[in-house]
Amino acid sequence: MKIAIVAPSCSLDRTAAAQVEAMVAARGDCALAIHPQSFLTAGHFAGPDEARLAALREVMADPQVDAVWFARGGYGSNRIAEAAAKDLPDAAFAKTYLGYSDAGFLLAAFHKAGLEVAHGPMPQDILRNGGEATVTRALDWMVQRSDSALEAGLDGPALAFNLTVLSNLLGTALEPDFAEAELLIEEVSEQHYRIDRTMFHVTDSAAVALVRRLRLGRVSDVIENTPNFESDEEAIVRDWCARRQIPFGGRADIGHDAGNKVVPFPVIRP
Amino acid sequence: MKIAIVAPSCSLDRTAAAQVEAMVAARGDCALAIHPQSFLTAGHFAGPDEARLAALREVMADPQVDAVWFARGGYGSNRIAEAAAKDLPDAAFAKTYLGYSDAGFLLAAFHKAGLEVAHGPMPQDILRNGGEATVTRALDWMVQRSDSALEAGLDGPALAFNLTVLSNLLGTALEPDFAEAELLIEEVSEQHYRIDRTMFHVTDSAAVALVRRLRLGRVSDVIENTPNFESDEEAIVRDWCARRQIPFGGRADIGHDAGNKVVPFPVIRP
Repeated sequence: MKIAIVAPSCSLDRTAAAQVEAMVAARGDCALAIHPQSFLTAGHFAGPDEARLAALREVMADPQVDAVWFARGGYGSNRIAEAAAKDLPDAAFAKTYLGYSDAGFLLAAFHKAGLEVAHGPMPQDILRNGGEATVTRALDWMVQRSDSALEAGLDGPALAFNLTVLSNLLGTALEPDFAEAELLIEEVSEQHYRIDRTMFHVTDSAAVALVRRLRLGRVSDVIENTPNFESDEEAIVRDWCARRQIPFGGRADIGHDAGNKVVPFPVIRP
Repeated sequence: MKIAIVAPSCSLDRTAAAQVEAMVAARGDCALAIHPQSFLTAGHFAGPDEARLAALREVMADPQVDAVWFARGGYGSNRIAEAAAKDLPDAAFAKTYLGYSDAGFLLAAFHKAGLEVAHGPMPQDILRNGGEATVTRALDWMVQRSDSALEAGLDGPALAFNLTVLSNLLGTALEPDFAEAELLIEEVSEQHYRIDRTMFHVTDSAAVALVRRLRLGRVSDVIENTPNFESDEEAIVRDWCARRQIPFGGRADIGHDAGNKVVPFPVIRP
């Protein structure tokens, strides 16, 4: 089992990389290949678009690689997602892709292209409190398809996204088919007014209207709203689901934190 | 000429209200009616949705009112915009609606419903440095249709929006028809990475793809991007326009500032 790490958004921290390498060495059930591109920097990004795209395409096309693990979020994978999902080599279909947050743009594009993707922890998460368990969960899922790594409430096809990332991919070439799927969302570092506005946008989308139900993951590091919004994330999400007649299914065990569970997307064979 | 002020988003500042009332009294060519709802507060908003909607519908239906002036932006008009634009009384068609920022949700909804709307300064702008000239410009446009109040580069049908507001109304019931129109955008208090992400979203929209060209207003109070984004707002907008083959028409004289000029939308008679 060979896992390749690339960074389609921001650069991987070298300390995080070393810790994950040590964990993988200790397990002995998989091998890790951290692409040198993961450590590039170009302003906000882990190297220019061309470098991030080339590294990603390289590991996707490598028949020796069994899983592609996105190094971390941040911002930038949307700039290369459409190109990354074009004219795919056969080898790209024989592997798994794992990540979340900004990597949601890639999850959407790759899912739409018929690849096997999952929303779940990334290497940079090792730096969180409790991050060793988080990374173990991701590895357990990639290597053993361990049920304990999965979000416990899954009972059918599911897609999971950071709410802001989802809002920004609706109506673009990356927009997936939500019909009959459960939609799980999570959010980090936004004000309540922004969450309300984004829910307005997302729940009035014709694509999202087709979901089987919507569940809310954790919403962390909420930025103070001035004045107080006098509501909270669950009330906001319940309200928009009710207004738009989208079934609300309660909470989900995903988020920008150490507890983030894995949500495999259904595989579409075109 | 009677101008009604209502606050579909956040509450109007009482000092701003008094200053604008004094200016209108000194001019003598119009009368101002500040709806008491403008001063309500309910958490983030100028009163609950029901109160904001009722005040707005009341002034829209009033045949004595010649112009409806949105008090200020903030957040919240999206929550009532669709309802405000439904089952319109005849009197609603015989008046002008002016505002920008969060009020863009109403501009979109009302434009789509066949009302005469314009993107331009609001009463709360009196509090800016140079705000008296800003408010004079808005009044000159509402009362006299003064050409000097207009954005100077207009040469055909045009729509103007705050970029984030535009992004959040795409794909919703409020989305206007952009075909053959020039699209002017402006932004405030966002990081460069967010502006880049929003441009990704907006320029891949099938609706926005139909614009005649896109022009960029001012982008103010940019929040520091860590690390430095190594680009600026004009380069970002030029880049996405080039990628999506949307003609970029240069800069526009609109923004969250005292210099904000008026952009009247074309009137659609359904």
